Amino acid sequence: MYISKSFIPILKNNPSEAKIKSHQLMLRVGMIKQSSAGIYSWLPLGFKVMKKIEQIVREEQNKIGAQEILMPTIQPSDIWKESGRYDDYGDEMLRIKDRQGREMLYGPTNEELVTDIFRSSVKSYKSLPQLIYHIQWKFRDEVRPRFGIMRGREFYMKDAYSFDVSDDDAIYSYNKFFLSYLRTFKRLKLTAIPMAADTGPIGGNLSHEFIILAGTGESKIFADERIFKVNSDDTKIEKNSLEELRKKFEKFYAVTDEKFNKKEFEDKVTEENRLSTKGIEVGHIFYFGDKYSKSMGASVDLPGGKKDFVKMGSYGIGVSRLVGAIIEAKYDDQNETMNWPISVAPYDISIIPMISKNDKSALEKANNINKELIKNNIEAIIDDTDENFSSKIKKMNLIGAPFQIIIGKQTGDGLVEFKRPGDESLEIKLVDVIKIIKEEKAKY
Amino acid sequence: MYISKSFIPILKNNPSEAKIKSHQLMLRVGMIKQSSAGIYSWLPLGFKVMKKIEQIVREEQNKIGAQEILMPTIQPSDIWKESGRYDDYGDEMLRIKDRQGREMLYGPTNEELVTDIFRSSVKSYKSLPQLIYHIQWKFRDEVRPRFGIMRGREFYMKDAYSFDVSDDDAIYSYNKFFLSYLRTFKRLKLTAIPMAADTGPIGGNLSHEFIILAGTGESKIFADERIFKVNSDDTKIEKNSLEELRKKFEKFYAVTDEKFNKKEFEDKVTEENRLSTKGIEVGHIFYFGDKYSKSMGASVDLPGGKKDFVKMGSYGIGVSRLVGAIIEAKYDDQNETMNWPISVAPYDISIIPMISKNDKSALEKANNINKELIKNNIEAIIDDTDENFSSKIKKMNLIGAPFQIIIGKQTGDGLVEFKRPGDESLEIKLVDVIKIIKEEKAKY
Repeated sequence: MYISKSFIPILKNNPSEAKIKSHQLMLRVGMIKQSSAGIYSWLPLGFKVMKKIEQIVREEQNKIGAQEILMPTIQPSDIWKESGRYDDYGDEMLRIKDRQGREMLYGPTNEELVTDIFRSSVKSYKSLPQLIYHIQWKFRDEVRPRFGIMRGREFYMKDAYSFDVSDDDAIYSYNKFFLSYLRTFKRLKLTAIPMAADTGPIGGNLSHEFIILAGTGESKIFADERIFKVNSDDTKIEKNSLEELRKKFEKFYAVTDEKFNKKEFEDKVTEENRLSTKGIEVGHIFYFGDKYSKSMGASVDLPGGKKDFVKMGSYGIGVSRLVGAIIEAKYDDQNETMNWPISVAPYDISIIPMISKNDKSALEKANNINKELIKNNIEAIIDDTDENFSSKIKKMNLIGAPFQIIIGKQTGDGLVEFKRPGDESLEIKLVDVIKIIKEEKAKY
Repeated sequence: MYISKSFIPILKNNPSEAKIKSHQLMLRVGMIKQSSAGIYSWLPLGFKVMKKIEQIVREEQNKIGAQEILMPTIQPSDIWKESGRYDDYGDEMLRIKDRQGREMLYGPTNEELVTDIFRSSVKSYKSLPQLIYHIQWKFRDEVRPRFGIMRGREFYMKDAYSFDVSDDDAIYSYNKFFLSYLRTFKRLKLTAIPMAADTGPIGGNLSHEFIILAGTGESKIFADERIFKVNSDDTKIEKNSLEELRKKFEKFYAVTDEKFNKKEFEDKVTEENRLSTKGIEVGHIFYFGDKYSKSMGASVDLPGGKKDFVKMGSYGIGVSRLVGAIIEAKYDDQNETMNWPISVAPYDISIIPMISKNDKSALEKANNINKELIKNNIEAIIDDTDENFSSKIKKMNLIGAPFQIIIGKQTGDGLVEFKRPGDESLEIKLVDVIKIIKEEKAKY
């Protein structure tokens, strides 16, 4: 893709209305454009990143056997009255009357709707467990939307729901999502730590927030630093292996603000391991048993002729929020580069030819290199403008493809000038560039 | 995927509330579930089909150089007041007040929002043409939602927008979409004919509806039958080649109801070629020049220092509607099978082992076959239940994977029983099954 043909409206300076890094940068590099307070359009660069995150989230859901559906954004009020949450939700729920005067709402979450689908479709314990997820826009009418897409009103979220016949089975489902979340964030090159959390309006008594550390985060956390060393690489999707993994994490104190107790923190964590800092919530999982199945009458036949309400959990990942979270975690201030993990980078590599009005040979070279890259499934953006070299480098650092090829000064025969944004460049063969990028891709 | 583990709630009989085939079948086979009038949840089977359609639409948009963005569902009212359509749209527009009392709406289309994005980002003719699209949920508050997802209230649509500096360039953009639509529908194994159409609330003076013939369609059409023979295979994405293609179609009379004129029809079409029938609108393209750019002030600098309003077109494909349209066009009444084109089938093949309580060897064989298929990127659904054979066949015909392997009676050494739903079966080698499926996939 030539940058001159792309729809990437880059601003000269950081916009003054944005208070945090990710918001500033997303506006500056033309990833998003505000449509109204807390509501954004995703321009090509932002869209590409978000779609790649979505796909990783999807793949990791599928790996634990979850099935994808898609529920609508507009829901009827009756199911929320059944569950008792219609009044609880307050002004954050965007309430709508349609042309017939029916009370509708823009879904802030989907426990009710998915329970309604389940109760009309599944009748027997034989069809359980069922793990169902969807990735859909949600709306929460925040009083003060802020931090760009980090706390927007219309946001893109993956929410999953599990249905089981017993508490024991349900915890097994919970643990599957627990692992799948760790794997998802790892592929995004993020260290997200599960922390004991409050269940809030969702309900239930078992809940973890997945938090990545960031000074600009809105969540206060308190943890035993050693929890960052817990490794899930060898965990298998088996009951015992998953239970062990959760126990390994729970050995270390790690809680969010609402669960914090000073005495407990000081008793359980020796001083040198005490971490008290801020983070960004990127995922949240809940186990709430029969809270919704009971009020909404979702039961299945058990062996032996009895019936029981199904045991449910719900599991959210903020897909649009993750775009901002990755920027907060990865942005390299010194080199002013987004430094995207290759798994979600809008482009794998940028090609920066030095072009003058009279000499387009570097652009021709760039095109030839690009042909080789395309054959190898590597996506490049080419700066085909005749701006000066340093402003081109600055712009491409900002866009943040994780690799760059510079075409300007004389290189050795058959070699290209290759670098990571901000690093020193190497002269290597194009086949080696391709090898390095493919290896990096295979890792995430 | 085992059918016993899948979330495919199949009904015994056609639901009585549904009036047309596609609606009946989608409910019966568990592709969708109604959430409220005209609003549906997409269950795994329906979701898979819709996603495959979406991907084909996306690929064909990308091939003509359109760039994907994603605009939000909830829009502010001010831009609609600027364009003058806020009042025009009437009760079909779902109007919302947020907690601050601001007037918002659920976007029924996006001319205003995309023009707002364009005017704040693009300043010079040098950046044109720009072709921008997004695939997003829309809402139109129909008085009488009907025919399931064919005329629902919340629906999934691809809408694209072109921005050019002159009428001449703009028609070139229009023609690109014209070709891309023909290619898109062809990959869906549909014959969609472009018919001169009214522009309605979008405005402008050049417009085509893409119509597929179907007795249950809501559009009346009048055409010279010979238009079905026009071939676009050799058309290139070049100005002249595209213009020729559109001319080739326009040689034949083909109009929708609003454009119909009896005298003209009879003058232009000899009696034996007159076709007067019903169809389903699956796409609609519009050229409307500066209708929105003028009222909303979207202009660019021209060479020589002048400014002018950009010339725009818009281009829609009903992605969710296409799921129903394909069923209307392809459902095979005699064999009671969905008969999905392989490009959008929820599964490529169904494997139907005859299983009894005491003999699971056929299931084992099915699993082994499936392993080979997976290696070849072929997705199968396996009926692992112990229902009787004829009800299994019926169910799998209904689900409609375009191929079947039956594992039951003795077959020749190294051979499998292979068939299309409703056809006679063949005994062939598994490698040949794989070859046939791959060839079919490569065609669409």
